[in-house]
Amino acid sequence: METQSLTIHVKKIEKSKIEQVDFNNLAFGKNYSDHMMYCDYIDGKWQTPQIVPYGPMEFSPSTKVFHYGQAVFEGMKAFKDDAGRVHLFRPEENFKRINKSSERLAIPEFPKDYFFESLETLLKLDHEWVKPGQGNSLYIRPFVIATEEGVAAAPSDAYRFMIITCPSQAYYNKPVKVLFAEKYSRSADGGVGYAKAAGNYGAQFYPTNIAKSKGYDQVIWTDAKTHQYLEEAGTMNIFFRIGDKLLTAPTSDRILDGVTRKSVIQLAKDNGIEVEVAPVEVERIKNAAKAGELKEIFGTGTAATIAKVTGFEHAGDEFTLPKMEVEYSELMKKYLQDIQYNRVEDKNNWLHPIEK
Amino acid sequence: METQSLTIHVKKIEKSKIEQVDFNNLAFGKNYSDHMMYCDYIDGKWQTPQIVPYGPMEFSPSTKVFHYGQAVFEGMKAFKDDAGRVHLFRPEENFKRINKSSERLAIPEFPKDYFFESLETLLKLDHEWVKPGQGNSLYIRPFVIATEEGVAAAPSDAYRFMIITCPSQAYYNKPVKVLFAEKYSRSADGGVGYAKAAGNYGAQFYPTNIAKSKGYDQVIWTDAKTHQYLEEAGTMNIFFRIGDKLLTAPTSDRILDGVTRKSVIQLAKDNGIEVEVAPVEVERIKNAAKAGELKEIFGTGTAATIAKVTGFEHAGDEFTLPKMEVEYSELMKKYLQDIQYNRVEDKNNWLHPIEK
Repeated sequence: METQSLTIHVKKIEKSKIEQVDFNNLAFGKNYSDHMMYCDYIDGKWQTPQIVPYGPMEFSPSTKVFHYGQAVFEGMKAFKDDAGRVHLFRPEENFKRINKSSERLAIPEFPKDYFFESLETLLKLDHEWVKPGQGNSLYIRPFVIATEEGVAAAPSDAYRFMIITCPSQAYYNKPVKVLFAEKYSRSADGGVGYAKAAGNYGAQFYPTNIAKSKGYDQVIWTDAKTHQYLEEAGTMNIFFRIGDKLLTAPTSDRILDGVTRKSVIQLAKDNGIEVEVAPVEVERIKNAAKAGELKEIFGTGTAATIAKVTGFEHAGDEFTLPKMEVEYSELMKKYLQDIQYNRVEDKNNWLHPIEK
Repeated sequence: METQSLTIHVKKIEKSKIEQVDFNNLAFGKNYSDHMMYCDYIDGKWQTPQIVPYGPMEFSPSTKVFHYGQAVFEGMKAFKDDAGRVHLFRPEENFKRINKSSERLAIPEFPKDYFFESLETLLKLDHEWVKPGQGNSLYIRPFVIATEEGVAAAPSDAYRFMIITCPSQAYYNKPVKVLFAEKYSRSADGGVGYAKAAGNYGAQFYPTNIAKSKGYDQVIWTDAKTHQYLEEAGTMNIFFRIGDKLLTAPTSDRILDGVTRKSVIQLAKDNGIEVEVAPVEVERIKNAAKAGELKEIFGTGTAATIAKVTGFEHAGDEFTLPKMEVEYSELMKKYLQDIQYNRVEDKNNWLHPIEK
């Protein structure tokens, strides 16, 4: 894929930990595969990527990421097909997005060949950690953190790009009930909402805890200006099925440009389902629900894949979604997984196979 | 101060590093004193605070703070008076604020006795690091980070509260030119702008870099909704002197409740200077500048103390502030420092002496 030659330094683990992992009872994000990648940015330059056994690293207490949240990440997955071959799903999208996030957080861009060669080397080494079978995958977490030591409130002059991976089953096991935000906000116009910036996530935990105490699993964020438009769920983009049509908000500087979101839009179109990408008014959704026209709501995200929403609340009004004979959420999940597990023709060229 | 007895575990450094530090040429936040405090939150409980030699610590790459920015901090200072006694300035305010920030970031509150006894123990041990003399201080950085290992996007179940300290001269050596924000934003209504959340700072670096490339040192943030109201500078609150009156924005869920800000408001009143706390329209400031009524702009913050602004730009209009014979920024700095260095009566009870 790349013409220039890049030497990644690899230090293999002495003995794999894979026997210690119960792959049928995985808590998301708790078990890490044998190897990880790190690459330091020092003196204005990304150094040679290092692949080493997964494990702790030393950081000074003044390390900038602890103080100023200068950190971005990605979420992506590798799948194993029935022939035992490992595929990444749309990794180009994650590569482009992590650099877009980095730009907004004043973090230097990461080179494309470093990203892809690191991923490929890592996945070849840890291919046994990618289990075949519906719902199984290897979750891949590239991230960048500011590593300069010193608490002056200015961009770091040192960074660490890392990739860690963890085996994953389905992220959300059960359908979710959601609360439409009325007071709290996720992001502002002119802010960092479109970036996968670490601080965007920590900021959501408190309002989400409040929603949980009321019996809801997630918050659907509305625009900070008016709270009249539904935007995204923080870890997922959101789709609404009104009649036979899907509706989702356009991306903006407040909304993450989700890879699963754009894949679902494409797959819906490929399969003859109309998709309207337009600002989603809370009132429109409530009115559609009252009129019996709101058939489904579902979230899309790399970790969650497709998360079905069973009901929602807004301003004291509670709504339960109907049970549909044919669920778009199930259809979309099937279309997506058929490609991810290499069971159908990959017309859109989304799979990136890893050579054994 | 506390009635209950708390045993802090102390491990002293073998040999102080203080001889290696050039106290006349301090880069802010680059030299740390001999000791630091850490206290872990595990199993729903803050454990015994540990005071140990300052140094690196091990963290797993999946540590939540790296991924979700669940982190808050404080900035405070200790000053040494001419009698060689060390004083904290309004530490109660920092204590209250770090817990207010923590609440918004879904981080458990830190106990008051742990906070004060840790600070006192640390400052007794490292009292030689607090240098007397105008502009000298020990900058104190309490912070809390999420330490659970695991990349699930949910609040951490483990945290580390830390205090590190670094000797400091004046933070900004030169007056600053500022840019009023027109496009980028610092915080949203219903967001985390009022909290000293790590992510609020990393998010400002990119727009600040753009401002710097245009020749400005700082951005004065405007409200994300309309960009018509001046709010704060990210590391400082902002005061405008119109005629003989000071004007500053009220705190809100977007604006940090600065300790220096509230001290300046009080000191202005104590010294017969009128202060208007009201939303600050960009147009009002520009019109006042055009009419020759805008006399001064200055920033206030723990690190900066008082930072004089010499000029500003908005929407292509550039303004240079006049040279005043009597500068409120200088007056306020003097009032503040006279208290901080214990040179005048501390009428408002702001000093917290550390017993030798």
